[in-house]
Amino acid sequence: MVWDAWGVPSGHAPLPEKIRTLLAQVFGVSGEPVARRDAGDVPLRACALAAARLAELSTMVGADHVSIEHRDRLLHAGGKSTPDLLRRRAAGPQDAPDAVVFPADHDQVLAVLARCAEHGIAVVPFGGGTSVVGGVDPARGDLAAVIALDLRRLDTLAEVDPISLTATLGAGVTGPQAEELLAAHGLSLGHFPQSFEFASIGGFAATRSSGQASAGYGRFDDMIQRLRIATPAGTLEIGRAPASAAGPDLRELFAGSEGTLGVITEVTLRVHPRPETVAYQAWSFPDFTTGAAALRTLVQTGAAPTVLRLSDEAETGLNLARAGDVGGTAVTGCLAITTVEGTLAHVEARGAEVNTLLAAAGGTALGERPARDWEHGRFSAPYLRDALLDVGILCETLETATNWSNLAQLKAAVTAALTDSLGTQGTPALVLCHISHTYPTGASLYFTVVAKQAEDPLAQWGRAKQAAGDAIIAAGGTITHHHAVGEDHRPWLSAEIGEVGVRVLRAVKQAVDPAGILNPGKLIP
Amino acid sequence: MVWDAWGVPSGHAPLPEKIRTLLAQVFGVSGEPVARRDAGDVPLRACALAAARLAELSTMVGADHVSIEHRDRLLHAGGKSTPDLLRRRAAGPQDAPDAVVFPADHDQVLAVLARCAEHGIAVVPFGGGTSVVGGVDPARGDLAAVIALDLRRLDTLAEVDPISLTATLGAGVTGPQAEELLAAHGLSLGHFPQSFEFASIGGFAATRSSGQASAGYGRFDDMIQRLRIATPAGTLEIGRAPASAAGPDLRELFAGSEGTLGVITEVTLRVHPRPETVAYQAWSFPDFTTGAAALRTLVQTGAAPTVLRLSDEAETGLNLARAGDVGGTAVTGCLAITTVEGTLAHVEARGAEVNTLLAAAGGTALGERPARDWEHGRFSAPYLRDALLDVGILCETLETATNWSNLAQLKAAVTAALTDSLGTQGTPALVLCHISHTYPTGASLYFTVVAKQAEDPLAQWGRAKQAAGDAIIAAGGTITHHHAVGEDHRPWLSAEIGEVGVRVLRAVKQAVDPAGILNPGKLIP
Repeated sequence: MVWDAWGVPSGHAPLPEKIRTLLAQVFGVSGEPVARRDAGDVPLRACALAAARLAELSTMVGADHVSIEHRDRLLHAGGKSTPDLLRRRAAGPQDAPDAVVFPADHDQVLAVLARCAEHGIAVVPFGGGTSVVGGVDPARGDLAAVIALDLRRLDTLAEVDPISLTATLGAGVTGPQAEELLAAHGLSLGHFPQSFEFASIGGFAATRSSGQASAGYGRFDDMIQRLRIATPAGTLEIGRAPASAAGPDLRELFAGSEGTLGVITEVTLRVHPRPETVAYQAWSFPDFTTGAAALRTLVQTGAAPTVLRLSDEAETGLNLARAGDVGGTAVTGCLAITTVEGTLAHVEARGAEVNTLLAAAGGTALGERPARDWEHGRFSAPYLRDALLDVGILCETLETATNWSNLAQLKAAVTAALTDSLGTQGTPALVLCHISHTYPTGASLYFTVVAKQAEDPLAQWGRAKQAAGDAIIAAGGTITHHHAVGEDHRPWLSAEIGEVGVRVLRAVKQAVDPAGILNPGKLIP
Repeated sequence: MVWDAWGVPSGHAPLPEKIRTLLAQVFGVSGEPVARRDAGDVPLRACALAAARLAELSTMVGADHVSIEHRDRLLHAGGKSTPDLLRRRAAGPQDAPDAVVFPADHDQVLAVLARCAEHGIAVVPFGGGTSVVGGVDPARGDLAAVIALDLRRLDTLAEVDPISLTATLGAGVTGPQAEELLAAHGLSLGHFPQSFEFASIGGFAATRSSGQASAGYGRFDDMIQRLRIATPAGTLEIGRAPASAAGPDLRELFAGSEGTLGVITEVTLRVHPRPETVAYQAWSFPDFTTGAAALRTLVQTGAAPTVLRLSDEAETGLNLARAGDVGGTAVTGCLAITTVEGTLAHVEARGAEVNTLLAAAGGTALGERPARDWEHGRFSAPYLRDALLDVGILCETLETATNWSNLAQLKAAVTAALTDSLGTQGTPALVLCHISHTYPTGASLYFTVVAKQAEDPLAQWGRAKQAAGDAIIAAGGTITHHHAVGEDHRPWLSAEIGEVGVRVLRAVKQAVDPAGILNPGKLIP
């Protein structure tokens, strides 16, 4: 990815005319992008690692795989939240790891961790670098130096079991690489978060990622059969069977550990045959409440499709669910998208069940087109955010989840918190929302916030984020449904899991990482 | 339950004539039951708790709720494995807790734990007492005394959310009580393990129970939305949303913790509307391999029914899947049972999909009757075991799980280990097997072993169990799919989760139970 924005250069484009018109109308901004700085001009502090330490690291992973180059350090300077991108766009020096290390395999990771523990060097495990919560910030904690441990060379499909439908993938395999490697075996993982194009298998596991087809294929943590983890205390291999009663499920302790308890080097995942067919169907519901009740009926009946999402009135009105056509002709009411994937017979049976239930619940079928449009543009929203940031617009997302009975209250509370905070700051906000992950007992809420940037947009967003996080906790939601904790949500983790829960995490950390080298300052309060 | 056998007295009956005939033919036993000892004659060692300690406990929970009565101590002397029942039937003293304490609520549990930690008194959390792995044995560890903490008074339905379909139940609520409490709201939990009639909500959670309708409603751990746990370090309340990315899922650390990390006092569970209808269908498959492949197709297609099980040729031949008719007219090949529950429309749609797939996979439909027979007799097998033990037959079960591709190999390895061990001991065994829990990536295997008792049946079974456990680990299975670890599977836990995994469990234990009072000798090696 480019250092100061999302994705690849070819993904970036000037804002379409209709969006510029919209921005001028709503926020009074001209829509002229400001120039960004050249990567080579960005000052970094000197590498804090002694030559002897670098030589040791080179011995372990090969001299070609330890870098203190300006470009490599800058590319590992953090993730892709809006605050991250604002910091990159601001003047002044950029924090960065002292070196970037590219191990080839599990044993090299183990060796690097052991040596770093010995010398007190912090280690930030680095997959696709797509964190939007500060999860890969080059923080040193109390230590003198920090390396980014880039796992891209762990990029193989180690094993496929076509009977059990499992596949073992290296932590550094990206979303598209995983699909390509599996396609050669007629298989698919079906994990499509918005970070899909760049994020990695290890990152998905370490952050409890959830993809757009979660209604059909589950969250990433649901897919995990086995984890191989390198820790300063040694190797952990967990998951001997699809399910077990042999004590606590330690997979669930390391899934979501965000690099603070170990480095996930290999993941065995549930996969599925590439679908014979995909049925697309879009729907309109008169309002969000009716639409949410319809989604609830589907999942509580045991008739979930593969993709199931619902935009609220504001998001539907802006047409943001169809990223390729923002500001274009909108659906009235609330737009819902469904796809059903699988064998021909299964898609026919499930598709019929879905369509009957949604129609009975007040939905109006809109045909395939809006669903295909959504799929076509589904990874492009982060590029749009970059273009907005460039013209002085603040744009960020945040997400939560709760039980169905609490969904409307939580949505209202978060919307009010964001609207009030940004309004009070003199920058009235648009707050859009959708449901993208559903469960029998509840659903996620994903908010997109757009406002004019204030003079200090970092402080401006900081206040809004604080208000939203407090509102989420007060209204009974989880502080994050699929973005993870990192640095940004850490202040709320005690409220989420309680003081005894925090004590448990600290005890596990102490057991596997007594020197405290693993991703300091993330997750654990 | 009665102290020296399964269940209630009314469930016990002499062996039917056709089983006695079978036993005489196969094992050469007469089928005459031996008399069991009278509970009142069983010597227990004196209560090791000082009067001051008992007085303190009485202050906390009320004098009526602390018992050192012989009968209460005997009824909390352990679980219901075959070794447990053989020990009860043997002459000599019976180990038992020094006192039985019946707290009324979470705060009383918390207070009792704090006081016991202070005075070094071991605490064995006690639900239904149905453990078959030594999970409720009155072990003291290094401590001078042990109490059983019987949770039966935590027996309320605290809250129902009819929109989100969740219910909050006290840890002491039994299976039938849960169904009755929920039925008043038109709801059902749908968790029906063989221990259903006696086991408790807290026990289900603490042992990762899995019920006979797991294909439709999931394992018990899948149903858990929120746990309330009392530990010597304080209270833990975890689970703010149906799913979350807020770090490790600590619910999964305390589910399966078997009373060693805390006492689960309240569980919020996913429930469902009482089904409008249930479709029953039994099937015959020519052999186990064909049947297993058929079950695999169902779950991998996303078309699982509610109940899905398959008996192997030996179990089908003995008709053991239809407990009410053991030895009666058997189905040929391998018997499979399916039920599909839900709304009328869903049962119609899913039932059609299931029937089409099973027929295409080589199944012959046998109609409803054998499926209804199975359901009718599904909780009676433990009573049959008691009758067999009484006539000098050894009968025990064990279970494991693995990926589909490894299922046949694991089944053969465990069958051979049991057959060889008992054959070598001069007591040739019948080994029967079924699949009762299925996943997209694999399935469980449940073995029933029947042999003539040797002179020392405890030692006899000990050798067979050791051989089976070693074979499970060597063949890549989990040491337990749904019976938990307790004392009996503890020797294999290091092989299951590795030394680093064990270190993690010990660290968590140290953090929440530094005095080591909670269920000593269970789970953690």
